[in-house]
Amino acid sequence: MTPFAREQWYVIAYAHEVGRELMARTVLGEPIVLYRTEDGKAVALADRCVHRRYPLSESALVGDTVVCGYHGFTYDTKGTCVAVPGQSRIPRTARVAAYPLVEIDGFVWIWIGDPARADETAVPRAEHLTAPGWVTVKGMEPIACDYGLLVDNLMDLSHETYLHGGYIGTPEVAETPITTEVDAEAGVVRVSRHMADAECPPFYSRSTGIDGRIRRHQDIEYFAPCLYLLHSRISPVGQDAPLFRTEITYAITPGKPGEVYDFWAVSRDFAVEDAEVTEFLAKFNHTVVMQDVTALNLLQRALDAEPAGYQELSINIDAGGLAARRMLAGLAAR
Amino acid sequence: MTPFAREQWYVIAYAHEVGRELMARTVLGEPIVLYRTEDGKAVALADRCVHRRYPLSESALVGDTVVCGYHGFTYDTKGTCVAVPGQSRIPRTARVAAYPLVEIDGFVWIWIGDPARADETAVPRAEHLTAPGWVTVKGMEPIACDYGLLVDNLMDLSHETYLHGGYIGTPEVAETPITTEVDAEAGVVRVSRHMADAECPPFYSRSTGIDGRIRRHQDIEYFAPCLYLLHSRISPVGQDAPLFRTEITYAITPGKPGEVYDFWAVSRDFAVEDAEVTEFLAKFNHTVVMQDVTALNLLQRALDAEPAGYQELSINIDAGGLAARRMLAGLAAR
Amino acid sequence: MTPFAREQWYVIAYAHEVGRELMARTVLGEPIVLYRTEDGKAVALADRCVHRRYPLSESALVGDTVVCGYHGFTYDTKGTCVAVPGQSRIPRTARVAAYPLVEIDGFVWIWIGDPARADETAVPRAEHLTAPGWVTVKGMEPIACDYGLLVDNLMDLSHETYLHGGYIGTPEVAETPITTEVDAEAGVVRVSRHMADAECPPFYSRSTGIDGRIRRHQDIEYFAPCLYLLHSRISPVGQDAPLFRTEITYAITPGKPGEVYDFWAVSRDFAVEDAEVTEFLAKFNHTVVMQDVTALNLLQRALDAEPAGYQELSINIDAGGLAARRMLAGLAAR
Repeated sequence: MTPFAREQWYVIAYAHEVGRELMARTVLGEPIVLYRTEDGKAVALADRCVHRRYPLSESALVGDTVVCGYHGFTYDTKGTCVAVPGQSRIPRTARVAAYPLVEIDGFVWIWIGDPARADETAVPRAEHLTAPGWVTVKGMEPIACDYGLLVDNLMDLSHETYLHGGYIGTPEVAETPITTEVDAEAGVVRVSRHMADAECPPFYSRSTGIDGRIRRHQDIEYFAPCLYLLHSRISPVGQDAPLFRTEITYAITPGKPGEVYDFWAVSRDFAVEDAEVTEFLAKFNHTVVMQDVTALNLLQRALDAEPAGYQELSINIDAGGLAARRMLAGLAAR
Repeated sequence: MTPFAREQWYVIAYAHEVGRELMARTVLGEPIVLYRTEDGKAVALADRCVHRRYPLSESALVGDTVVCGYHGFTYDTKGTCVAVPGQSRIPRTARVAAYPLVEIDGFVWIWIGDPARADETAVPRAEHLTAPGWVTVKGMEPIACDYGLLVDNLMDLSHETYLHGGYIGTPEVAETPITTEVDAEAGVVRVSRHMADAECPPFYSRSTGIDGRIRRHQDIEYFAPCLYLLHSRISPVGQDAPLFRTEITYAITPGKPGEVYDFWAVSRDFAVEDAEVTEFLAKFNHTVVMQDVTALNLLQRALDAEPAGYQELSINIDAGGLAARRMLAGLAAR
Repeated sequence: MTPFAREQWYVIAYAHEVGRELMARTVLGEPIVLYRTEDGKAVALADRCVHRRYPLSESALVGDTVVCGYHGFTYDTKGTCVAVPGQSRIPRTARVAAYPLVEIDGFVWIWIGDPARADETAVPRAEHLTAPGWVTVKGMEPIACDYGLLVDNLMDLSHETYLHGGYIGTPEVAETPITTEVDAEAGVVRVSRHMADAECPPFYSRSTGIDGRIRRHQDIEYFAPCLYLLHSRISPVGQDAPLFRTEITYAITPGKPGEVYDFWAVSRDFAVEDAEVTEFLAKFNHTVVMQDVTALNLLQRALDAEPAGYQELSINIDAGGLAARRMLAGLAAR
């Protein structure tokens, strides 16, 4: 299993998902309850009452406090217990963890680690998600697999040809060699695949209107552990313009061991007023994501049944994924 | 996990559940098959054939004998094997355990432990269940939780305010302090909560017809490990009569580890001819019990996912539950 | 759990099940993908891509090669990798195991063990399955039990009286003693039960037309570990002819630990043109097999819940099953 890297920011939710209903998510094995105060501020607390470990997400939100649904222990936004049943004295140790949150680019980021150290690490950015002139479609799928399998999947796009053939993959993706670059200090792995003359898959032909062959550039930036950006650039072969820019964003958030939240978004700066293109991309990319979900669920079940010490065989296309694994191991070991 | 206390009587079934169909239940991890002889006597045998461990509950009841559904090993009401296939000689060791049973108060009690010692311990009584002048509604729900969680639940009624608000709970239950008394010799824990002036919850307003505020007394007697009685007394504030008496009975029978049978009954000595009240209490209390079932299933799943050595924080309301846990630990250690 | 015996032939499929669709089965814990080449030759490869362990059974069959559905690693019928994405050099270690297969008597047999030693052991035969003058009905049911439980079941037919009463069992089966013979060198256990005057069960009365009592001979030959033959001979009491011959074949193939493939077939040399008899036997025997499946699933769950070191009590009828267990233990230990 890929080790969990603490002392890091992770996407726990889209901003629009968090509201006045209590919501449960588990990040790096920690159960968390999310909600917004009456003033609209997002709050994240440990999702277990100090009394008998009842999930606070099964509680009532009263004003800005959470009232445990079992015996009424009441917590404020800092996780401090402010009321208990049957007595006025509240034990000093009655508090649950409150998590640092940052809301930006349409994401709610949570700091898993020592809260005092949250300020030392910048939240990674995906500005195109909310920038003017860009339109985004998005979703989230939980997958029952080690989060490292999703990192592997995204770092090696040669699988587009086989798993997503007829959707986003064409023969050229698997055929074209990649270049890989590791910036250990910044914690970024970059993988590029530039196809000078490639078939145009339906994903792009139907969104851009191009009907011939294309120049297709895929430039990945993986900001370990959570944020993955694929800068996709398309233009008809033989002409430089128009250049169609698509930014494909993934936030890869480990849930429990063997579970991962797969936040996905597709942003474009063309045909931004065209609702049909928007609807097409939302549906089509969801289908593509579900192909990955199905394959990764299956792969995890296969790996779970393998005897210990099974072997992998890596080739050139795996350079990015292997670099990502080393970086994650380093972050986890710190 | 709360340890199992052997050498004790447990409710395995309501008397009306046991008949001429073989019936399987598991108590303290022991699989048991139950039936009645042609003369109406309840019988309990170990539910595994000595031959190949096939469940005898999947067998045929022929007269008063059980004929194994796989190869025909035949047992009498003492568990002695009286026939085997293909030979007339029956091995001397061919017998399954027969369990002492006592049928009383509408319950079938089973002795889990050395049968020779069953007579040393009296069967706890709940006479109101069948006494003249009382009417009872009842049921049984299996819960996928440690039986200690159900004991906790019942010993601390402050949860009525939160989990059963609008049914049996009102603010006064959680607000009013309790008194606790432990009779270690008799093996009884008593918890009392006397509310002088409280809101009347629907459970009582609709069964008694009271429409104002009430004096409400809750007096718990827990006869560890299995029998729990809640003596509930209600009267309108400011008048001593009429006094409405409700006896709420639970039998808490550990099944497999992590499973418990929750036998529940509500007995009253008022409106005993009123079928509408009977029907109301049967439905309404089932709803209340299912609120507990849902919460305890959920709590157990949450605890199962907790890292080992998780902490609880106890306050005054937990005095009864903690005393019960100590008593159960003592019984189990004997 | 009954240990697995490697270096043996096992039935992995009926010949008619293997075609131009990739098909997954697991034998002795080894995941295997099966298909036929364009020339009709059956192929069996390890069902895990060398690259990232993706199941090859989720791949595409292109000509005679298997193209992994995740990243396109391509294997020929020998398991040799002949193409990988993004590069022309193929690592020398890129190969998956190819299994020796023999197709005979309507079965596809697979050799689990060192392929170089497959020729040293003859494939057991069940010639009646495809011989002229015989008609066969057949099927396969997976059972969630230790394969040893199915061997036990088939070696001791006294269970016909109880589990299959009204179908194939009558009182005489359980009453009649057996004779057992073990040929350790040939690896065969033989169990015979000859009933001189027995009730005729529906299985035989409806297929043969006999309406009185019968002479009934059951002669089992178990060729450990996989092939079981029951030579059944029926004739009306008091006359030698006509003699109705039925060959009942089982192939017992361990899948994963705790799972077994139950291949079953009923062959007859009478009423071979009678489609109604064929249809009756197909349906009726499926019902009988499902009675075993249900019982063995149940028995395994019961055994899984037993504390370690549970006891069995064996009697004369178990002589064949115990001999089979000893033989399997010997084969596994080699």
